[in-house]
Order: sequence, then C-alpha cells, then structure tokens
Amino acid sequence: MDLNKIRREIDRIDNSILRALQRRIEWGRLTLKFKKKILSPEREQAIVNSLMERERSLLSSEVIEAIYQTIFTESRRVQAEARPLIAFQGEHGAFTEVACREWNKNLAPIPCATNSDVIEGIEQGVYDFGMLPIENTIVGRQNHITALLNQSKLHIVGAISIPVEECLLVVPRAPLTQLRRVYSHPMALAECKSFIHQNNLDAIEYFDTAGAAQWLAENQPDGTAVIAGELAAKYYNLEVARHNVGDNPHAATRFLVVGSEPKSDGGNKTSISFFVKNEPGALAAIMNLFADSKINLSHIDSVLDSTGDYVFYVDVDANVNDAPVAKVMEQVEKLCDSYRVLGCYNEIK
Amino acid sequence: MDLNKIRREIDRIDNSILRALQRRIEWGRLTLKFKKKILSPEREQAIVNSLMERERSLLSSEVIEAIYQTIFTESRRVQAEARPLIAFQGEHGAFTEVACREWNKNLAPIPCATNSDVIEGIEQGVYDFGMLPIENTIVGRQNHITALLNQSKLHIVGAISIPVEECLLVVPRAPLTQLRRVYSHPMALAECKSFIHQNNLDAIEYFDTAGAAQWLAENQPDGTAVIAGELAAKYYNLEVARHNVGDNPHAATRFLVVGSEPKSDGGNKTSISFFVKNEPGALAAIMNLFADSKINLSHIDSVLDSTGDYVFYVDVDANVNDAPVAKVMEQVEKLCDSYRVLGCYNEIK
Repeated sequence: MDLNKIRREIDRIDNSILRALQRRIEWGRLTLKFKKKILSPEREQAIVNSLMERERSLLSSEVIEAIYQTIFTESRRVQAEARPLIAFQGEHGAFTEVACREWNKNLAPIPCATNSDVIEGIEQGVYDFGMLPIENTIVGRQNHITALLNQSKLHIVGAISIPVEECLLVVPRAPLTQLRRVYSHPMALAECKSFIHQNNLDAIEYFDTAGAAQWLAENQPDGTAVIAGELAAKYYNLEVARHNVGDNPHAATRFLVVGSEPKSDGGNKTSISFFVKNEPGALAAIMNLFADSKINLSHIDSVLDSTGDYVFYVDVDANVNDAPVAKVMEQVEKLCDSYRVLGCYNEIK
Repeated sequence: MDLNKIRREIDRIDNSILRALQRRIEWGRLTLKFKKKILSPEREQAIVNSLMERERSLLSSEVIEAIYQTIFTESRRVQAEARPLIAFQGEHGAFTEVACREWNKNLAPIPCATNSDVIEGIEQGVYDFGMLPIENTIVGRQNHITALLNQSKLHIVGAISIPVEECLLVVPRAPLTQLRRVYSHPMALAECKSFIHQNNLDAIEYFDTAGAAQWLAENQPDGTAVIAGELAAKYYNLEVARHNVGDNPHAATRFLVVGSEPKSDGGNKTSISFFVKNEPGALAAIMNLFADSKINLSHIDSVLDSTGDYVFYVDVDANVNDAPVAKVMEQVEKLCDSYRVLGCYNEIK
C-alpha cells in the first residue's frame, strides 16, 4: 500500500458518492408527481434516524445528519424547480442521453431500465418526454419500439438523428499497451470489429455501453477498456484513449421524442399507423392518394401485430394540421379498418 | 411506478451513500501513515473541482462543494483522532469483524481483501492490529494462515473464539414464502445444509458472507436471501428472517490477533514454531521436556513448508515470560534447527 494507491481508491469512492448523490436527487424528483406537498419532515427524520442507527465505524452521526440535511435541501430545491424530465433507456452517458440533450437542453434526462419503463412513466405523468431509439445504421428499424409506441397512448412530438461516435474509454492513466479486453454492448462491439481485431482485444458483451463505462469506473480491473460515447467518459471520469473507433464513419441513430400530448402546431413530418381493409388493392389505393396529392412518403413498413394482422407504419413529409393534408388523411382513414396519427412533429437532422 | 417503489429505491441509494461515505472516511484515515501533515488543501480543492466539473444533471455544484467540505472536515477529525486500527479479511459485518469488536471495542475495524493484505498492512504500519481466523468447527485449522503468519515479522498478541451464529437475512419486508435461493460463502452454506434443504432453497456460492449481504442490499433481487451474521444485517439494513440456521449449535471460530510488537507482559498462552533436527527421537525429546515441566500443550501440528521441510506449530498453556517456562524453552530451542516464539498472549474463550 502507498499514498498513490490509497488516493486512487479514494477517487474511485468519490466517483461512487457523486453517482449515488445524483441518483438520490433524481429519484427524489420523481416523487413529486405522487405527493401533495414537497416537504415530508417525518420521512426525512425517519431516514436520518435509520442511517444514524446503522453500523458505520469511524463515521460520526453528526456528519451523516449534516450531509443528509444538505441532500434534503437540494432535493426540495430540485422538486420546487420542477424542471421538465425526459426519460431514456440506459445509464447516464448513453448515446440516447446525448440525443436528449441535443433535442432540448432544458430538459433533465432521467435513465430508465427499459423502453417500456420510459413509456409507462410518461403515461403516468412522472416524465414529461421520452427518447426512443427507432432506427440505426447497424440494425435498422427497431420494430418492437414502434409496436410499444403504437400500443401506448403517447404521441410523437419530435425526431432527431445523431452520429454515433464510439470511443475507447480507459481508467485514467491506465497503461494502453496492457489492454487485453474490451467491454461494450454487442452492437457497439460489432460496429468496432476492425478496431478490436487490429488491437488484438477480447470483446466481452455488456448489456449497455454507458453501463459498461460505469462498471469499469467502479471496478477498475486491469487491462480493461470499454467502448462507449464521450459523454460516458465525462460521467464516469474515464479517459478517451481513442476517438471514433467504429468501422462506419457515417454511423448514426435516429430517435423519436414522445410525450403525452400531441405537438399543437405539428411539424414537417407526420407518422400514422393503420390496418388496411382486407381486400385487393387497398394499400395501393392509399399509396395513390399520397402520390396524387404530391405528399412524399419517407418511411413505410408493415409489422405483424400481436393479433396476427399486419399493421402499417407510414411517415410522410407533411403537416397534418394543414387543411389539404388533413383532407388526404381523411380519405386514407376511410380505406382503413383502423387508423391513428402517431404524431406530427419536426425532424431534426 | 408509485411512491412506495420510489421510496424503496431511495432507501437503497441511501444505503449505498452511507457505505460509500464510510469507505471514504476509512480510506482517508489510511493516508495518515504516509503524510507529513493531515491537511492537504490542494488535494481537497482538486477533488472538489474535479467532481464539480463532471456531468451530474440535476445536482448542483454548490451541493457537491458543501457535502465535500463536510466530508473533508470529518476526514481530518478522524485522522487527528488517530484511533488505532484492526484489519480483517472480508467486508464490514463479517464474523471476523465481530471478533475484532469482542477483542477490543476501542479499535476501528478496517476491511481488507485478503489475509495477506492484513499482514502486509500491519508490517507497513498502516494498521495497528489484525484479526486472523485460525480454526473453526467446520474446516478445522487454517494452515495457510499459520504459514502466512510464520513468514511475516508479526507477533501474536491475542486469541479469541466466538460462536458463529448464522442468520437468514432478507430485504426488509420481502415476502418469505417467495424465497427461492440463498447466497453465502460455501462454508456457511455447508454449515446450514439442513435448513437450506428443509426450505427447498437453491444454494448459490458467494466469496464472502458479509459481501453477499452487501450485494443483496444493493441489488435486491426478488426471492433471494443470504446467510450471514447479525452484524451484516445491521450494516446493510437487512432483516433477520431467522436466527441460528446452522446445523451445529456449537459452531465457533477461533481467531489470532496479530501486531508488529510482542505483547510486553505476555499471557496464558505461548505459540512457537520450529524445525526439529533431522534425527530419530528429536520431537519426542521436545515433548518430554514439556511433559517433565508439567507444561500443557493445547495444540500441535506439522505443516509442509515451502522449502519441503516440516515446520511444527505448538501452543502451550504457559507464559514464556515466567523464568521457569523460559528455561524450558531455551532447552527446546537447543533441540531445534530453527525456533521462534510467535507470541505470548491471553486466550479469550
């Protein structure tokens, strides 16, 4: 043991403390929706008492109490501020969080375990918006997310594409020549295949890119790197050993922003979902309606629904709030067994 | 999501914060040995700056700074107090920590990854004492620990036996009828075989009993319990669902307390290690010396040394500081190729 080793361990612990404090404040913010008032003095006192009663060796009760008073004050401030929230699947530092910040930097990004949690949380009113990865240059369209969205009551209120810049992240001052293995999401590992091969690294799958970064920062195993975005390095105090380690310089992911209310003024794009009537030429008739009206389709696909029928998803470059477009859509609806506007929004490239 | 679920998550985070703060203060205390002075204002400022610069969404800079000033003040207080430290292998809440507290409640128990780390840390002067599990009612004598001790420059300054009271620990308010699996150290699982079988639980091995408790508290998987001591429940805010789940009501572990200096006044027991001269009757001659002097042997074993020779470990119920005993030992030494008093100390039963 020496002073450097101890200080590296303290740096690691400080990183854990910062991340835990951040999660503490975020989860405190989530209670807002469920309480009549922000102040819960009995609950606060119960928390402090419980923590002070627990075994903790050298750490004094007074310090626990002082730190928790600071945490409670901050938690109340954040709740009173009630900054709107945008939920995303993954850990802090994920590419989806980058998309959240690009779309609207005034929203606070909140991590969720699954995309279903994102959708459910918005339906409950806990989150104001959600960011859903809908397609990317590696795996294409994420049909299960379209299906989740179609089953929900949510509306698409925006769309944004961001470049995926994969980076090789390492523990600060870790010797690069001793790297032996790299952890990341299977998709990110596939995307960086050439780099991994050239550097003779073992690729080990992890459920999440930013999650792998967090794990690396907390455990600091020797000879180990992760592939994740630069934002993950900023969150977990890792070093970017190499930028752009992906095979495809044009790698990008497209996201849909969803909310509980439709965007009132609409935008340059409209997404609809429908089941066509089960008769020959039904889909062709719909396509002809768009073609005759000079409305450009930017996306179409048909997905086997849970009922065994095919649901169609169509994006058109038009604002459904414009009277002529609305008129075409009325005619489309007449040709469908079921028809729904998923949202009318602006696409940010 | 509902308020109860969010508050359970907050309780879990608070537990992590408390544990991280505790580790922070402990590691800060360990720097004491390596510094000329306690105050390191540049290092403190660098830490706060680094933490404030990192991404942290809703959590404000001012709060990070305020909490860290409290942590630094506490860290300086704990360093100035310079309470003596006793190191043990395992996580906080381990049975070995129970032994530390029983032996001397004024010492601060510090967890280490391995028993070698315990010994090395004392040799370096980082810890004042160490607690080594030397034998127990399940696996018997731990010869590798005797060997570690014999290779070190440390002295035995005490010995203590404590009953091992295995408990079934669960997440507070977890439904007991839904328990499916139990995690613990392989030895603890073996010790609780009947209980595990009667309750039809899957036994899953974990490297450490208290470590399993910490893992359960942090991850709270459904249907999962751990077997560990009651102290682990107090540390990690778990509930004792059942006391004494071990098969053997007399289960106990015996520990040696080690330090860098011999106990000046000795005690009721002396431990020696020696190599006998390679000639017939050499060991018998030593045994006769003890027998003739009415010195009772409480333990003897011979262990294959790394050199390929057998080293003998003998405990006698006598104080080597007493002149008649010292005289016998002098005669023993003459019959040995190599002879060492490992320590003279009091045994606490």
